Amino acid sequence: MSRTVLVFGAGKSTAYLLDHILEKSTSEELKLIIADINPNSVDPKIASHPNCTVQQLDIFEDEKREKMIRDASVVISMLPPKLHIKVAVDCLNHKKNLVTASYISDAIQQLDSDVKNSGLVFMNEIGLDPGIDHMSAMQIIDRIRDNGGKMLLFESFTGGLVAPEHDSNLWNYKFTWNPRNVVVAGQGGAAKFIQEGTYKYIPYQKLFRRTEFLEVEEYGTFEAYANRDSLKYREAYGLQDALTLYRGTMRRVGFSKAWQMFVMLGMTDDSYVIENSQGMSYREFVNLFLPYSPTDSVELKLRHYLKIDQDDIRWGKLLELNLFDHTKKIPLAQASPARMLQYILEDSWTLESHERDMIVMYHKFGYELNGVKKQIDANMVVLGDNNSHTAMAKTVGLPVAMAALLILNGKIKNHGVQIPIKKEVYQPILKELESYKIHFKEYEVPYLGYNPDSVAI
Amino acid sequence: MSRTVLVFGAGKSTAYLLDHILEKSTSEELKLIIADINPNSVDPKIASHPNCTVQQLDIFEDEKREKMIRDASVVISMLPPKLHIKVAVDCLNHKKNLVTASYISDAIQQLDSDVKNSGLVFMNEIGLDPGIDHMSAMQIIDRIRDNGGKMLLFESFTGGLVAPEHDSNLWNYKFTWNPRNVVVAGQGGAAKFIQEGTYKYIPYQKLFRRTEFLEVEEYGTFEAYANRDSLKYREAYGLQDALTLYRGTMRRVGFSKAWQMFVMLGMTDDSYVIENSQGMSYREFVNLFLPYSPTDSVELKLRHYLKIDQDDIRWGKLLELNLFDHTKKIPLAQASPARMLQYILEDSWTLESHERDMIVMYHKFGYELNGVKKQIDANMVVLGDNNSHTAMAKTVGLPVAMAALLILNGKIKNHGVQIPIKKEVYQPILKELESYKIHFKEYEVPYLGYNPDSVAI
Repeated sequence: MSRTVLVFGAGKSTAYLLDHILEKSTSEELKLIIADINPNSVDPKIASHPNCTVQQLDIFEDEKREKMIRDASVVISMLPPKLHIKVAVDCLNHKKNLVTASYISDAIQQLDSDVKNSGLVFMNEIGLDPGIDHMSAMQIIDRIRDNGGKMLLFESFTGGLVAPEHDSNLWNYKFTWNPRNVVVAGQGGAAKFIQEGTYKYIPYQKLFRRTEFLEVEEYGTFEAYANRDSLKYREAYGLQDALTLYRGTMRRVGFSKAWQMFVMLGMTDDSYVIENSQGMSYREFVNLFLPYSPTDSVELKLRHYLKIDQDDIRWGKLLELNLFDHTKKIPLAQASPARMLQYILEDSWTLESHERDMIVMYHKFGYELNGVKKQIDANMVVLGDNNSHTAMAKTVGLPVAMAALLILNGKIKNHGVQIPIKKEVYQPILKELESYKIHFKEYEVPYLGYNPDSVAI
Repeated sequence: MSRTVLVFGAGKSTAYLLDHILEKSTSEELKLIIADINPNSVDPKIASHPNCTVQQLDIFEDEKREKMIRDASVVISMLPPKLHIKVAVDCLNHKKNLVTASYISDAIQQLDSDVKNSGLVFMNEIGLDPGIDHMSAMQIIDRIRDNGGKMLLFESFTGGLVAPEHDSNLWNYKFTWNPRNVVVAGQGGAAKFIQEGTYKYIPYQKLFRRTEFLEVEEYGTFEAYANRDSLKYREAYGLQDALTLYRGTMRRVGFSKAWQMFVMLGMTDDSYVIENSQGMSYREFVNLFLPYSPTDSVELKLRHYLKIDQDDIRWGKLLELNLFDHTKKIPLAQASPARMLQYILEDSWTLESHERDMIVMYHKFGYELNGVKKQIDANMVVLGDNNSHTAMAKTVGLPVAMAALLILNGKIKNHGVQIPIKKEVYQPILKELESYKIHFKEYEVPYLGYNPDSVAI
């Protein structure tokens, strides 16, 4: 008798997830049921698969949702994060295992003891970031520890970028995921991390000027700015004693310094509304943030305000976005500066249908073994196929699908609300991901860290 | 039979307020009752006055508070702003008039129709800023309008500073009021104003770099940065059609550019706590916001980070605060960066007992009369007597006392929750303030405004 995999939400990030389950559906005897508010949005190639059924569902239809969960063997929620809790509560009531790619919310975490007592697995944070970052990091950390090493430093960086052959604008950036997250990135509090045992804080107004550089073989140089939450997984990873903990977001070199222009102008602010936003030209939008002058141009005012010299490539970056165009209009009513900036950026930074995205992840592991300080750097590059089958969809969706099948087959023995940091989870999934060319290259490098002994005076 | 003036809260800002009421107590047949949680803090010279009684009161003792209000002729609340509502509700119930120097809160505003229906006056915002700014601005605006003029521009600036003879540090600044307000000034959203009919926005990260200069005869040059709320009184002042509305805070020249260092470092952030704040040295505090280095000094890291050249006086300003001292410690536990910075600043910027503060207020009124554009600039400078009888206490307290007596004598005919923008309020009070040397000097100046016609190409 076949098992039923129930997937809530079939947005564009689920292409590989659904493909993977259907590929396995014969050998694993699976029925895939997709529940979506807009069933027509599901790719016909998937919807017409003999082992697939698509059903229309508004997640707030309690009775229908609950019945579907009751009939399922395992449940995957790809809904917006705040909606997971509805699914999770039903899963608990009907003793079904659950998989999501989202951060564990407080509401989900509170189910933990009930989930454990019911012998269930609620696997979360099993996409890309969070997801592959957890698994790949823990694999190397566990190996270092199993060999007797002591962790000194862990740094981890991820970037959703554009493949080199389509990396065609001055910003070396196009949107491959939620543009809003990019526009408001870093807001809401200072970035906090530890370097050599010392807490460090970066306020938003300096975040994009405190980048560090990273080299990836064959792909060149990247930069990274700090995430707000570098200490988030200190306990989960068992890194309470590590001297350095740093997590960041990767961009191509020069992006952050140019982005800082938007920060300093105030264009990334999402906390208030521009009353007369609708129909405003790109040029007028820029002028909102510059001093009034009856004679000076918006261009010169901006150059002077941000001290942009004649030969500064940041100027080209602004021109490329048509920021000074007075014919291009923003159609959004009652929009915040951030929302208006997003509109302008989407006008230039959208991935064309034939263009491919690129995921880059970079970890640094510093450790001490037999009194010697060592370091392993590991990086992963994944390229998308096109603008619907993106590297982002691949790296988010495949681990989710694989985790659901592991759980269905009883391979996960550890119960409760969890993230993929146990060997029983990451070992089989990282192995299977390799067959999709999702894998890390490791390099032994000198441990420079931030260690006085290794600095030349 | 004498009338009773009941004052809640006798903090140090009330010296002149209480003096004024006692001075008038014989001629006006007044009894002053001071209710304070800490009656010993009231100046013995005031407490021992034959017409004065001091009573101990915790404002949350409902019965006692209500009885005091029932027995009063007029009530003044100098409590922290959020506590006014308790007094206001009692005043409404017992049909007593109320005076405060604070901004009208939503809770107070909601009492308006009940206050009107009871024929009462709840006068608010009748201190310095808000207070004297309202009265002095409306006096000139009303005069311009009465003469047939049309308002084009209104700008208003206030600063609480230190008297020239005690202006002895590189920042030209000492705390004369609530230091916390100075440290967190400008946070919580972009500053918004109108210049020549165009909305303009300044984010926090640029606020202190968008100052304008103001000249005050005999006192030299000041600078001003924008307040968040320049449009706040547009309706109240009847300035809906004015092309330019701008309100700002005055400092001596160079303060804001130097303050920007703290902003960019992240030291003014009040949104999170430094866990190990207690016992941290000033130097360690600075280093929290700088990149880690095993060899480079905190000094050089900061110079490089903020691009401070060798000959930049901002460096002297940092040294003067002992920011790089590793022996000076911050004793505060679980303090935010803003709280820690405040501690360091209070260490240097406290007014000595013999030192005098200074209040400066500056208004610009642009208007058109018979087709001609004109401008009046008006400014006020008030000096304190010493560090308890400050210019701040004088300019906040006297208008409150005067308003209370006007109300007591039935001179305010307009009922309801209000601010002092009516002639019946500002005329007698501004006139009486002149006898305390609190007055504005007016200057007719060319209307430059931001008007294309007057700009030389």
